[in-house]
Amino acid sequence: MRQDHLISAAQLSRTDVEAVLDRAADIDADREAWRRRHAGTVLGLCFFEPSTRTRMSFDTAMKRLGGRTVDMGPVDSTSVKKGESLADTVRVVEGYADAIVLRHPLEGAAKMASEFVDVPVINAGDGAGQHPTQTLLDLYTIRENAGLDDLTIGIMGDLKYGRTVHSLAEALTNFDARQHFISPESLQLPRSVRYDLHAAGAQVREHTALDEVLSELDVLYVTRIQRERFPDENEYRKVAGQYQIDADDLSVAKDSLTVMHPLPRVDEIAPDVDDTRHAKYFEQAHNAVPVRMALLDMLIGGDD
Amino acid sequence: MRQDHLISAAQLSRTDVEAVLDRAADIDADREAWRRRHAGTVLGLCFFEPSTRTRMSFDTAMKRLGGRTVDMGPVDSTSVKKGESLADTVRVVEGYADAIVLRHPLEGAAKMASEFVDVPVINAGDGAGQHPTQTLLDLYTIRENAGLDDLTIGIMGDLKYGRTVHSLAEALTNFDARQHFISPESLQLPRSVRYDLHAAGAQVREHTALDEVLSELDVLYVTRIQRERFPDENEYRKVAGQYQIDADDLSVAKDSLTVMHPLPRVDEIAPDVDDTRHAKYFEQAHNAVPVRMALLDMLIGGDD
Amino acid sequence: MRQDHLISAAQLSRTDVEAVLDRAADIDADREAWRRRHAGTVLGLCFFEPSTRTRMSFDTAMKRLGGRTVDMGPVDSTSVKKGESLADTVRVVEGYADAIVLRHPLEGAAKMASEFVDVPVINAGDGAGQHPTQTLLDLYTIRENAGLDDLTIGIMGDLKYGRTVHSLAEALTNFDARQHFISPESLQLPRSVRYDLHAAGAQVREHTALDEVLSELDVLYVTRIQRERFPDENEYRKVAGQYQIDADDLSVAKDSLTVMHPLPRVDEIAPDVDDTRHAKYFEQAHNAVPVRMALLDMLIGGDD
Repeated sequence: MRQDHLISAAQLSRTDVEAVLDRAADIDADREAWRRRHAGTVLGLCFFEPSTRTRMSFDTAMKRLGGRTVDMGPVDSTSVKKGESLADTVRVVEGYADAIVLRHPLEGAAKMASEFVDVPVINAGDGAGQHPTQTLLDLYTIRENAGLDDLTIGIMGDLKYGRTVHSLAEALTNFDARQHFISPESLQLPRSVRYDLHAAGAQVREHTALDEVLSELDVLYVTRIQRERFPDENEYRKVAGQYQIDADDLSVAKDSLTVMHPLPRVDEIAPDVDDTRHAKYFEQAHNAVPVRMALLDMLIGGDD
Repeated sequence: MRQDHLISAAQLSRTDVEAVLDRAADIDADREAWRRRHAGTVLGLCFFEPSTRTRMSFDTAMKRLGGRTVDMGPVDSTSVKKGESLADTVRVVEGYADAIVLRHPLEGAAKMASEFVDVPVINAGDGAGQHPTQTLLDLYTIRENAGLDDLTIGIMGDLKYGRTVHSLAEALTNFDARQHFISPESLQLPRSVRYDLHAAGAQVREHTALDEVLSELDVLYVTRIQRERFPDENEYRKVAGQYQIDADDLSVAKDSLTVMHPLPRVDEIAPDVDDTRHAKYFEQAHNAVPVRMALLDMLIGGDD
Repeated sequence: MRQDHLISAAQLSRTDVEAVLDRAADIDADREAWRRRHAGTVLGLCFFEPSTRTRMSFDTAMKRLGGRTVDMGPVDSTSVKKGESLADTVRVVEGYADAIVLRHPLEGAAKMASEFVDVPVINAGDGAGQHPTQTLLDLYTIRENAGLDDLTIGIMGDLKYGRTVHSLAEALTNFDARQHFISPESLQLPRSVRYDLHAAGAQVREHTALDEVLSELDVLYVTRIQRERFPDENEYRKVAGQYQIDADDLSVAKDSLTVMHPLPRVDEIAPDVDDTRHAKYFEQAHNAVPVRMALLDMLIGGDD
């Protein structure tokens, strides 16, 4: 990988992805060796929407590489309130920082921002658009636990609105994965995503119940079904309840099943799953650090 | 001290306390020697309630040890709003940080959190519960100024609701202190605290007026009486006014009297006390840094 | 310069200013040489009002010098809400930090704060009062682009309420500048500022239209005209529209004209100006870093 910005997972070839994951694995194997690598680097954090784990893990990643961060702070205490454009904001921040991590509520914001500045821009989520570093840490977690070859994965929950899911599904077409999508009918994959997956030759099947495929899966990727998607509370409860799992449900799964979730979870995964060998969602969250370290290292480049 | 977490002052023996205070004194005597001690360490700051001085002084303490901090940020910009449990939040943060400082509005939160993670958890206040590092810096300030042996201390103000006071009073039972409690009747020590003090063999007396004991005191620890505790403003003003001190009031005190206050103060201590030799409340606030450095050093352990 | 605090641009002689700008130029020429200069230093950021670029650039400046920062955070999560005085807040923070950057809504706040603490206080804006580091970075940008000798500068927009403008105009009286002020009648320079400029022997002219002087200018400093200054929206639009520039407007300007703006801008400078050789407002924003590094270095003093 030798790119200026990271805007979309789709810009990454299989070779690019593997380069990032290999670097992350190197880092994970010997954190000490990396902890002064970017000692003079300053990373700008521009989060136009609240974020806990994405912001904190980028912050951690830069610091674990020996660098510093400067944070724009919440939008309501910024110049944005005075009517400043995103292009102006990032052009100011590029004078402070060696790279910019950007989250913004509008799709396309990261791409636009990247066209105005000379420092690398990393998209940390742009509305309904992309969140490529989430995809990379998902792939890393899959590779570490189940391998990316000959993979059977189930992706369950809100498949309609979840950008995490769309991005992961598309990235998996670079590998030989069999993808099962499990959701209520009202929250199935959007037609455009389904089309892209077929165009890429993906092996895709859709289901409305987990038990149709659970026993075949190497990985089960669970996402949250949000209350707001349903016209009334009763309807939500009825539907959401069918896409929740507990330890009992997993009794028919392979021993080696890996259960993932982008977090935060609410009721989708019962706490009793946490103590099973399947639970890898906290490990997945922790993988944000080596994966984002790898990315920062590759985008910022050169020892400092 | 070789403990995994710091949840309550009550878990600390006299020996433990003295070990922390000795370490703090070492640090205070030669800050320079400590400033790279934990160069690779990342401390997670999880404040579920606003805090200025506790958060800032932990932040400073970690940085004065050469380490870094990552801050969860205010709760309203976090996953907590999406319904994430405290157990999940801290299990994510332990993947970023080598130790966690936690403040939470609910009593018992720190204890609970500590049961879910492998990194040290430091309780920075859990509602009406504990705030053990405040107690340690109070003890440090007393020891530096008046000594902890043969001590006569007066604790004045809101003795009913103040966790700082309860924790300090209980910690002083490890030493030979004579404790005088001065408060309006409606804000006296809760029965449970009084009971614990007697059970521990403490020498306790209660008063409604400071002048009954002021001249005997080595230390006067003043706390704020909050408006919210009174049904009406007039009642508050009348009562609170009796537990405020100015420089004149202190004319009958020992020359060596040390006046302390956990801060922020409002009207409890008049500004003219600031210029007297008695005023040690800013020094007390500053002691947060070496004491928290000592604690972090002991809990995180090992040169980095 | 050997001062304890930086409260007002007026406290700086021409020699002082040149010392800061020279230091900033040294830093800009070789950032690498400075990046460990203040490795053990902790800077306290106390912003009692929101700020993006001032806070971020001080944060960056300290980190680019190898130091750390501790941030008080937004006022609504601080002890200030509990009624703590500014004097108490800064006296606590001086126990954490080696210097304090203070922004406060009340004029005179920085001066007052400086009288209570022993560490250097840097005024980062006190209401309608001073913002001396903005003036220094403005002067630095002028010097780098047009030189400070034999300068013809136009200052346009809201000249009545803009502290940035007043401070810059007064600082320029130390140099041989010809100053043209361009504004609607309702937003002309306050009488007191005009008086001070004349008393200092400044060469001042006032205009209501830019085209009266544009062709003579070496520097055009544009400021925002705020909606709030006008009784109705129509009046605002009519007036503000006359003090906006686009690339076409600049066709009559000198080739070497430097256009500046303290940012954020809204409509005062059309985006098509960004691509002209005249646009220096982002460079101006970036100059905040070396100028604030120079100031911190000079106020904190001594290698660390």
